[in-house]
Amino acid sequence: MINFEALFKISYGLYIVSSGDKNKGNGFISNTVSQVTSEPAKFAACCNKNNYTSEVIQKYGAFAVSVLNIDASPGIFGTFGYRSGRDFDKMAGMNIKYGNTGVPIVLDECISFIECKVVQTVDVGTHLMFIGELVNAEILDETKEPLTYLYYRKVRKGVVPKNAPTYIDKSKLELPLKDLLFNKYQCPACGYIYDEANETVKFKDLPEDWICPVCGSDKSDFILV
Amino acid sequence: MINFEALFKISYGLYIVSSGDKNKGNGFISNTVSQVTSEPAKFAACCNKNNYTSEVIQKYGAFAVSVLNIDASPGIFGTFGYRSGRDFDKMAGMNIKYGNTGVPIVLDECISFIECKVVQTVDVGTHLMFIGELVNAEILDETKEPLTYLYYRKVRKGVVPKNAPTYIDKSKLELPLKDLLFNKYQCPACGYIYDEANETVKFKDLPEDWICPVCGSDKSDFILV
Repeated sequence: MINFEALFKISYGLYIVSSGDKNKGNGFISNTVSQVTSEPAKFAACCNKNNYTSEVIQKYGAFAVSVLNIDASPGIFGTFGYRSGRDFDKMAGMNIKYGNTGVPIVLDECISFIECKVVQTVDVGTHLMFIGELVNAEILDETKEPLTYLYYRKVRKGVVPKNAPTYIDKSKLELPLKDLLFNKYQCPACGYIYDEANETVKFKDLPEDWICPVCGSDKSDFILV
Repeated sequence: MINFEALFKISYGLYIVSSGDKNKGNGFISNTVSQVTSEPAKFAACCNKNNYTSEVIQKYGAFAVSVLNIDASPGIFGTFGYRSGRDFDKMAGMNIKYGNTGVPIVLDECISFIECKVVQTVDVGTHLMFIGELVNAEILDETKEPLTYLYYRKVRKGVVPKNAPTYIDKSKLELPLKDLLFNKYQCPACGYIYDEANETVKFKDLPEDWICPVCGSDKSDFILV
C-alpha cells in the first residue's frame, strides 16, 4: 500500500537549472538536484523529456544550477516554472552570468550556483537524468537561507507543475472530508488561491475566460490543491 | 574557480537506506535520495561502491529509505553512519518492519519510509546509483519534521563520513585564519568536539589509545571539522 503523503517527507531545495549560450538560453525550476559523487564532484539533475531545457542541455552538454533564496518571488516561479522557453526568452531582463562552459547562469534571487559539464545522460523513463562534473561554483549571497521544497509547500503554499519528478496526482492522496466538498485551486504563477469554501461559484462553473484576479493567468493554468 | 562552500547550499534530507532480508540486513545513512520520475514514482539512491550496503542492494534488488526525524539521536548515526555492517549486525535491537520486497525497514527515530524495487543501476564512478520503482510508502509519525542536512550541519554540527557523495575535503574550503591555527576534531558517533583552541594538547599529540570522553569512540575515527 502506497501512502503518497509519505513522499513529501523527502527533502529538496529549489533551483533554476539552465543551459544554452549568449544567443539563446533557457531554464526551468527544479527540486531534484543532488550530488552523486565527491571525487570528482558530480551532480545529477532530472529534466522531463518534454521540457525544452532537456533539448538545450543535450545540445550544449552543460548546465548550471542556481540555488533560489528563501524569499524568491512568485515572479521567478512564473517565468521559470510554468511557461515553456520554446515560446519566449526566459533570460530576457534577467541578471545573467555566462559560465566557464558558456551556459547562462541566473543570478536573480539566488544565493549560489554550480556549473557542470555533462558526463553521462541516463534515460529514467519520462525524464532524462543529466550527470555533470562540477567545473564552477560560487556563493552569491551569504545572508539568506536556501529555499526548500518543504518551506515552499507548507509556508508559501506552492505547488509543482505536472511534469516535475515529484508531481503527485491529488486523487492519490487521502483527503479529509471537507476537502472533498470544497476544492481549492491555485494560480501557479502568483500563488493566489480560489477557495470554493469562501466563494459562491464552484471553480469549474467559472467562465472559461475568467483570469486570476492577482496576476491575470488563465483559468486553465490553475491547479487543484 | 570552484568555491566548495557553495555546494552546502544544495538541500538534502537524511535517511537510512537499507536492504537485505530477515536473516541479514544492512543499512547506511544517506543524504542523497531523490525522486526521479512521478509516473511511475521512481527514486534514486547513491551508495559508495565500498559500502557493504551496495553489495546487499545488488543482491536483493530492492531497498528502503527511512526518513530520520529532526531529533534523531547521535546513537543512530553511530550505528548506521560510521561503522560497516560487514563487522556487526546493524539491525540488532532495532525496530524493524519487513517490506513487500522482504527488505528490512528501520522504524526507529523515523517519520516515514518508502520501499523501492531496483529497476536500473547506474555506475557514476565511486558510487552506484540505484533507481527503484516505488512499491510501498507509509507515514510513521506526523508530529515531527524531517531532519535536513542543513540542520544537521549547522545546528547539530554533524559531519558526513569520507565515502558520502557530499563529503568535502576541508583543505578545499576557504578558512578564516584562526581556524588555521587551531583545529576542531569531531567524534562522528556522538558529535563531541575536541577544540584545540580550548585545550593544552594538539589533537595529533594525543596518545593513540585516547578515546572520546563522551562515547568512547577511537581517536582515529575523529574527523577534522
